[in-house]
Amino acid sequence: MKIAISGKGGVGKTTIAAALAKIFSQNGGTVYAIDADPDACLAAGIGIPEEEALKLKPVVEMRDAIRNKIGDGAFYNLNPKLDDFLDDYSYKLGNIRFLRMGDPKKGGSECYCRENTFLHALVTSLLLDQKDTVIMDMGAGIEHLSRGTARGVDMMLVVVEPSRNSVNTAKNAQRMASDLGIKKVGVIANKIRTDKEKEFIESSFPGNIILGFIKFSESILANAMEPSRATEFGGELLAEMQQVCLKISGEVGGQ
Amino acid sequence: MKIAISGKGGVGKTTIAAALAKIFSQNGGTVYAIDADPDACLAAGIGIPEEEALKLKPVVEMRDAIRNKIGDGAFYNLNPKLDDFLDDYSYKLGNIRFLRMGDPKKGGSECYCRENTFLHALVTSLLLDQKDTVIMDMGAGIEHLSRGTARGVDMMLVVVEPSRNSVNTAKNAQRMASDLGIKKVGVIANKIRTDKEKEFIESSFPGNIILGFIKFSESILANAMEPSRATEFGGELLAEMQQVCLKISGEVGGQ
Repeated sequence: MKIAISGKGGVGKTTIAAALAKIFSQNGGTVYAIDADPDACLAAGIGIPEEEALKLKPVVEMRDAIRNKIGDGAFYNLNPKLDDFLDDYSYKLGNIRFLRMGDPKKGGSECYCRENTFLHALVTSLLLDQKDTVIMDMGAGIEHLSRGTARGVDMMLVVVEPSRNSVNTAKNAQRMASDLGIKKVGVIANKIRTDKEKEFIESSFPGNIILGFIKFSESILANAMEPSRATEFGGELLAEMQQVCLKISGEVGGQ
Repeated sequence: MKIAISGKGGVGKTTIAAALAKIFSQNGGTVYAIDADPDACLAAGIGIPEEEALKLKPVVEMRDAIRNKIGDGAFYNLNPKLDDFLDDYSYKLGNIRFLRMGDPKKGGSECYCRENTFLHALVTSLLLDQKDTVIMDMGAGIEHLSRGTARGVDMMLVVVEPSRNSVNTAKNAQRMASDLGIKKVGVIANKIRTDKEKEFIESSFPGNIILGFIKFSESILANAMEPSRATEFGGELLAEMQQVCLKISGEVGGQ
C-alpha cells in the first residue's frame, strides 16, 4: 500500500512517518520511506547516519538517468526495470529503503516543482508486492496537496496536535485529498497530554477516522537537542503506533 | 524597514510575526503584515476575525487589476499609485495593514509559484516612510528561500526552538538568505524552558546575532485550542519581544 503523511509544520509528521516505517518493515515486505520535504529530517528519524543521508542522490536526478538508459516515455511502462535505479538512489536499512526527493538549493535559484512532479510519477509507477509499503513524509502545510504530489496513494494520513491551527490545516488537507481522488483519509492525533485535548480533537473531526491518539512524549522532546539518531519510541508509544498501523492496514484492505 | 520571518514548521514564526507587528505598529508608522504562507494563520494572530480574513482578496489578484488600470510594465515605476490598490487588498487594524499572499487551492491544481513571484515584486516595489515596517510571515521550511520570495528585505529573522532539526533548518536558511544578498540575518530562540536549552541555541549559533530568547509560554499552548483570536503576550513575553524589536531596529539602522 502507499500512504502519504501530511499536516501543519511541527505537528510531528516525521516522527510518525519514522514509526510507521519501522513497524511496517517488520511485516517482511519492503518499506519505501520517502522524504518528500526539502527541509528534510526523515533519514535521522529512521536511524540513517546524517553523513550517509547527505551522500544519497536525490530521486529527481533519476529522471535523466532513466531517459538515458531506457529512452523517453519508457519510464511509465517498464516498471520492473526501475529496481536497478532504486538501488542507486536509496539507502537500505534492513527492509527499509530510504529515498529523498531533492537536494538543498541555492537561495533564489528555483522552486521544487520539478522534484514534486517527478516524485509523483515515480511513486505512481512503483508496482508493489502485497507486503510492500510506501510511506511519503510530505512537506509542511498544503502546497504539496495543491501540487498533487501524493495523488494516487491509497491513504492520506493527516497528523494534528491539539491546536486550532493544526486542525484548520488538517481540514484543508482532507478537502484537497478528496480533490485528488484519495479515497481514504485518516487523522492521527499527536502530542496529547490531557482528556480535554483528546476531546478537542474528537469534536473537531466528527464522523472522521481518527486512527489513534499519541501521547505527548517528554523523551522525544528531551532528545530533540541530541545529535542525529533514530527516534526512540518507548513501550507505550510503540504499542499505540502498532494499533495505528493495524487500523491503516484494515482501512486500506490489505493492498 | 522590511523584514521576513523564516524557520522550520512549528517553531512559532506566526506568533513572533504577530508580536512584531503589534509592537512596531506603536511607533506611529504603518505596518504591512503579510501572510506569505498558503497554510495561513497570521490574521488570527494579530486579531483579525477569521471571517474578515477569508473575505480579503489575496494580493496575487492585484497583478491583473494593476495591469488593467495602469498598463503593463507600469507597476514597478509608478509606486505611489499602489496605495489605492493596497486599500482594496488589505485589512486595516489600527496602524496594521494585513495582506495575504494567496487563496487555498483545489487539490492537484497548481503550485504557489505565481503567488510567490508576485509577492516578491510587490514587496520590492513598496516605498516605505521612515517609520513604516513590512513584516512577512513566510511558509514553513526553505522553499520560499529557494524561490527568493523575500529577496530585498533588510533583515531575515530565523526562528528556532531548542531542537536539532530546527537548528539545521535555520542554518540552511542563513546560507540561502546570504545567497539572496540579504545582509542581516538574526536568530530568535523561541519556546525556551531551561538554561540547557538556552545554551544549546547559543552553542549552535556562535558569532551569530541572537536577538532574543523567548520563554516557553504555557498560556499560548493553553489558548491554542480556543476559537480564533489575537495571540496574547503576557507582560514578560511582551518585554522580551520589545527588546527584540529594539535590536532589530538597531541592526537595520533606522531604515
